[in-house]
Amino acid sequence: MVKQERALRTRRALVRAAAEVFAEEGFAPASLTAISRRAGVSNGALHFHFPNKKALARAVEEEALETVRGITGRMSDEEGSALQMLVDVTHGLASRLAEDVVLRAGFGLGRDPSRGRNAGSRLRLEWWKWVEECLRRAERQGLLAGGVSAEGAARAIVATLVGFEVLEAGGDGKGWLSERSVSGFWELMLPRLAERHALASVTSMPTRRDHTGAWRGMTD
Amino acid sequence: MVKQERALRTRRALVRAAAEVFAEEGFAPASLTAISRRAGVSNGALHFHFPNKKALARAVEEEALETVRGITGRMSDEEGSALQMLVDVTHGLASRLAEDVVLRAGFGLGRDPSRGRNAGSRLRLEWWKWVEECLRRAERQGLLAGGVSAEGAARAIVATLVGFEVLEAGGDGKGWLSERSVSGFWELMLPRLAERHALASVTSMPTRRDHTGAWRGMTD
Repeated sequence: MVKQERALRTRRALVRAAAEVFAEEGFAPASLTAISRRAGVSNGALHFHFPNKKALARAVEEEALETVRGITGRMSDEEGSALQMLVDVTHGLASRLAEDVVLRAGFGLGRDPSRGRNAGSRLRLEWWKWVEECLRRAERQGLLAGGVSAEGAARAIVATLVGFEVLEAGGDGKGWLSERSVSGFWELMLPRLAERHALASVTSMPTRRDHTGAWRGMTD
Repeated sequence: MVKQERALRTRRALVRAAAEVFAEEGFAPASLTAISRRAGVSNGALHFHFPNKKALARAVEEEALETVRGITGRMSDEEGSALQMLVDVTHGLASRLAEDVVLRAGFGLGRDPSRGRNAGSRLRLEWWKWVEECLRRAERQGLLAGGVSAEGAARAIVATLVGFEVLEAGGDGKGWLSERSVSGFWELMLPRLAERHALASVTSMPTRRDHTGAWRGMTD
């Protein structure tokens, strides 16, 4: 293995280990020793890649942001119903959150008071802006029912997803991020949100799956 | 001032100071010295009332639980639409969360990973059970539309309120717990949730206010 490749692998292991420790303990109590031990590297190797814990948290959030961008994809190029795309993307984000500790830790850091206020709100802000833009696109496509505000609907949708994520992180095993949970929300929301003729062609279940049943991102 | 009254006042000041420090910094970084200083009492006085930080956190959560019970009130004795009651109580909880740091800290502690998993989920669990029971009551009253599951709707409603609370705690000043925000959610939700004849008599705005415009709890 060449030196550069090994360094990259160590860095990745450190980001993942940091995400696990942040998700389990929170930012303030997380120790660099616990992180380097979990990554299977020395403290010196950790400090070669990251000067301090804040830098590690930023790396976790950057990787989480890339994941969110991979799920939301290239909206402007996308054909088809923006409403179905929104449903699909919330399913994609939820299922990815359930299995990807770096993504989960990225959102968790954004609401961790021990990091200081607003320290990590960029991830959430980008997600919020995307939901709102997607709803505006649905509006331009004539898919939103009369009297529905894209801004107001975006707030409710973003809040619900945040709630599912927080409740899942609580570890009660109630499947808050499950397909059933996300579909249940859309079943209640879509009849008011969608224009009458659009309602028939939008489903609360995810439509983007590959042949194995796994969810496919917009950029696949 | 008699001795007992002074002790009670000191205890209350400590619970409030602890709630402020927990809400700002999180559980793990919060120091007992910072809490006693903010309450304006000595470390000795703090230890007279609370043996440790965990006991303070429990006291914050107990007070928050009492507040939630005051807002949800005596449901079984209550006449009238359980659906409107649910709308009213979510407004009541949201407005109280925006102004009551002990209530906010109570919910915050329940999702603080630095306290250990599930450490403070009792408050949230009780709130969830209340929402579900209220929806089952609406179902018995014939107010829920066909095909709506009380259990599924409860999950979506609980998640949205949790999301509003978490986003408000992020401190972005976007009014996540405002009346407009909560009403916006109900405007999207009620058309599917409510039986057609019930929809006309339920409003997304709170109906329980006194003459000053303040929200009235169910037990008032």
